[in-house]
Amino acid sequence: MKNPIEPKILPGFMELLPKDQIVFNQIKNTIQNVYEAFGYLPLDTPVIEYANVLLAKAGGETEKQIYRFTKGENDLALRFDLTVPLARYVASHRNELIFPFKRYQIGKVFRGERPQHGRYREFYQCDIDVIGQETLSLAYDAEMPLIIYQIFQKLGFGKFTIHLNNRKILNGFFESLNLEGQITDILRIIDKLDKIGSNAVIEELQKIGIAQKQIETIIGFITTKGTNAEILTKLKDMAISNNLFNLGIEELTTVLNYLESANIVEEYYHIDLTIARGLDYYTGTVYETIIDDHRDLGSVCSGGRYENLTSYYSNETLPGVGISIGLTRLFAKLKEVNLLPNFKNNLTECLLIPLDAAQIPYATQTANALRDANISTDIYYQDKKIAQKIKFADRSGIPYVILIGEDEQNTGTLTIKDMLNSTQETVDIQKCIKIIKGE
Amino acid sequence: MKNPIEPKILPGFMELLPKDQIVFNQIKNTIQNVYEAFGYLPLDTPVIEYANVLLAKAGGETEKQIYRFTKGENDLALRFDLTVPLARYVASHRNELIFPFKRYQIGKVFRGERPQHGRYREFYQCDIDVIGQETLSLAYDAEMPLIIYQIFQKLGFGKFTIHLNNRKILNGFFESLNLEGQITDILRIIDKLDKIGSNAVIEELQKIGIAQKQIETIIGFITTKGTNAEILTKLKDMAISNNLFNLGIEELTTVLNYLESANIVEEYYHIDLTIARGLDYYTGTVYETIIDDHRDLGSVCSGGRYENLTSYYSNETLPGVGISIGLTRLFAKLKEVNLLPNFKNNLTECLLIPLDAAQIPYATQTANALRDANISTDIYYQDKKIAQKIKFADRSGIPYVILIGEDEQNTGTLTIKDMLNSTQETVDIQKCIKIIKGE
Repeated sequence: MKNPIEPKILPGFMELLPKDQIVFNQIKNTIQNVYEAFGYLPLDTPVIEYANVLLAKAGGETEKQIYRFTKGENDLALRFDLTVPLARYVASHRNELIFPFKRYQIGKVFRGERPQHGRYREFYQCDIDVIGQETLSLAYDAEMPLIIYQIFQKLGFGKFTIHLNNRKILNGFFESLNLEGQITDILRIIDKLDKIGSNAVIEELQKIGIAQKQIETIIGFITTKGTNAEILTKLKDMAISNNLFNLGIEELTTVLNYLESANIVEEYYHIDLTIARGLDYYTGTVYETIIDDHRDLGSVCSGGRYENLTSYYSNETLPGVGISIGLTRLFAKLKEVNLLPNFKNNLTECLLIPLDAAQIPYATQTANALRDANISTDIYYQDKKIAQKIKFADRSGIPYVILIGEDEQNTGTLTIKDMLNSTQETVDIQKCIKIIKGE
Repeated sequence: MKNPIEPKILPGFMELLPKDQIVFNQIKNTIQNVYEAFGYLPLDTPVIEYANVLLAKAGGETEKQIYRFTKGENDLALRFDLTVPLARYVASHRNELIFPFKRYQIGKVFRGERPQHGRYREFYQCDIDVIGQETLSLAYDAEMPLIIYQIFQKLGFGKFTIHLNNRKILNGFFESLNLEGQITDILRIIDKLDKIGSNAVIEELQKIGIAQKQIETIIGFITTKGTNAEILTKLKDMAISNNLFNLGIEELTTVLNYLESANIVEEYYHIDLTIARGLDYYTGTVYETIIDDHRDLGSVCSGGRYENLTSYYSNETLPGVGISIGLTRLFAKLKEVNLLPNFKNNLTECLLIPLDAAQIPYATQTANALRDANISTDIYYQDKKIAQKIKFADRSGIPYVILIGEDEQNTGTLTIKDMLNSTQETVDIQKCIKIIKGE
C-alpha cells in the first residue's frame, strides 16, 4: 500500500468540527437576519479579482499580505476585504443600482500575514454599507449602532458598549494645534491608548516630536470623561474656533439625538474620543464595539463614515457609512473564553432507527412525514447492534430517537425515546410530531 | 482628477445585481434546507490548501485548470471541488467524527479553464456525502434520489427525471465482452450518447478498435428500454455469467425497491444504462438529473457511490455516496430559459418614509416595532421629494410603503400604501403589521 499524503491544512485557516460549525452558522445567520431586517440587500462578489483593481488604493502592508498570482496572462489577487470589491461593484453597476444603496456581504477574505494567536489568513467578514449619491443622511450613521445593538443583544455574549467618535472632531482638534501634518501618525498612536496605556502613548508622541504642552492638551482631550451629553458639552466649552471641529460636534450631536429617540438603552453606546479607526479612510462617525467583560477581545464590530467610496474607480462622489464584523476571529475568541454555551450544537431533531433492514421502508415513510412537519430527521441505515445505533444519536446530540421494530411496523406505531430523560413510549406519528415539537 | 481604474471583473466569474442575488440565495437556501432536513451536517473547509494535498489524486486536466501559486515557501492551490477537501477532512478528523458521517458543503470552487458559454471559473457547488466505516448501507444510495426529488420539487423548475445506473453493471458487462482493458475509454464514449447520438458513438467505438459485433451488443445493451422493472428483467434475462454484472443488478434492484417504498413517484426516476459519470471514481450507483423540458441543460444534479473516499490520505476504507449541484451554472441557465419567474426578488417588505427630518425619530421607532414583528423594514432617510422616495420603493420592488408626516406623528398613526394596488389608508401600528402580514 502506498504511503498516504498527510491530510493537513495551512496554519491560520479555520476548520471546524460539525458541532462547532453549527454554532458558527447560527451566529452568521443571526447577523445576516438582522442585516436583512434593516433592508440591506445581499451581494456576493468574486473571491478572485484583477490585482490592479483590488490594489487600486492599497498601501505597503496590504500589498505584502495579499495573495497575488498569475494565471495565463492575468495578474490576479484574492480579495483582502469586502470594501474594495464593494467600491468596484458600485462603480461598475452604478447605473443599475438604486440609491441609497444598502448592501450586506458575508464572505471569506484572505490575508497572507504571519499567523499569530487569534489571527487568521482566511476569515469571514460580515459587512454592511449604505452608499448615497453626493449626500447621505446622518440618520444612516445612527442606524449602525441600532444594528450593532440588535445583533449583539440577540447573540447574548453579555453587556457590550458601542464606542462612538467623529473623525472631524479629531482632525479639527489637531488642526487647531497646528499638528495637521502629523494627524495620521498621532491618530495611529492614540488609537493604541486602550492597548498600551497613556504613558506609552505619551512616549510615542514625544518620539515623533510633539511638544510636551501639546501632549498634555492631547491627553486631556482624549480622556474627556462623562455622560454623552456631558462630553458634548465639554467639547463645546473648549470653544475651539476650527470649522471641522465644530462640524464634527454638530454631526455627533445629531447622531446621538437620533440614537436617543430610538429603541436603544444609553448604557450601550458612549462617546470615546480615542477612537480613530487608524485608516485615513474614515471622515466622520466612527464605531467600535467592546464586550464589557472581555475588553481584551478588542473591538468586535467596527466601522465608520467615509466621504467617497469609489474614488479610485470613478469621478462620482458616493459617500457611505458601514460596519464590519470579523466573524472568524470573534468565534475563535468567544469559544476560548467559553461565551458560546447557549447555542445549540445539533440541527437534527430526530433519528429513526429501523431495528432490521425489513423496517427500512416503514422508517423512510415515517421520515418523510416528519420532514413534511418540518422536523429534520436522520435515519440510521447501517447494520449495527441497537446499542451502537442509539450511541450514534447520543454522541450526535440528537434529542429524540424513534425505534422501529417488527411490532411498530405491524401496528403502524412508533417507539419514541427522549434521549435527555431516557423515557420512551409507543405512539402514532401525530403524537410523535407533537412530542418532538414540544406541543 | 486622476484617471480612474476600470472597475471590471474577470470573465467566467458571476456577479449578480441584488434582485438576482436574492433569487440565487433562495435557491441556495432551498437546497441547504433539504440537506439539513435529511440530517446532513454543515462543513466549511478552507478555500486555500496545500497544493500537494489537493492534487493528491488529480490528473492532467485538473492540474491545468487549478489556481496554484506560492506564498512564502508554501505551494498552494484553490479548491477545485468539494470532494477532495472532504476526503482530506475525513482523513484528518476521523477520530472525532461520528460515522456514518453525513455532511453538506455549499461553497465556491475554482477552475481556471477557458471560460465558455455557461462555464464558470468560480462557481458554487452544493454537495452532500454520507461516509461509512468499512461498509455503507445501500439504503443511503436510495436516499440520494429522495433528496434530489425534494429539492427539485421545491424549486419548481418543472418535471424532472433522476437517471439511475450502477457502475458494476457497466463494468461487468464489458468484462463479459473481454473489453475490461478499454472500459474507461468505452465509458467515456458511451457517456456522450445523449449529446452526440448513437451514430457518432458507434464511430468513436470503431476508432478505438472495438469489433462491429461487440459494438452492436454494446449499443443494444445501453439502449435497453422499458419501465424500471422491465429493464431489470431484461438485464437478468441476458444471463451474463459475470459476478460484477450480477452484483450490480442486485444493488440496483435493492435501491429501486427502497425507492418504490418511499414517497417518490416512479415517473421521476428511471434506469439509464448510458450513465457512467465519466470518472473512474464511482463504483456503484450513479445518478444524473434532467429537467425534462430542458434536456439541453444537461444534468443538474449528479453523483454516485464510491468505494473509498480517503485512499490518498489514509489506509482505512471509507465508502461513500454523494451528489452535487453546480449552482452557479444552473442559475445562469435557468435564468436564460426564463425558469426563475416564480421566485420573489425582494427581501424588504416595507419602506418607511418620513416626510421630513423631524419625523425621523418616529419613523425609527416604528421600524423597531415592525422589525420586532419580523417584518424587514427599510427607512428612506435621504432628503428628497416625496415622489422620489416612493419611486425608490417602486424600483426596489418593496410591496408596502408607510408615509409618516406631521399628522401621523401627532396622532400616533401611519399611512400605509399598498404599492401593488396603489391604495392607502391611515391606521395604527398593529393594523399595519396585520396588513403587511396579510392577516
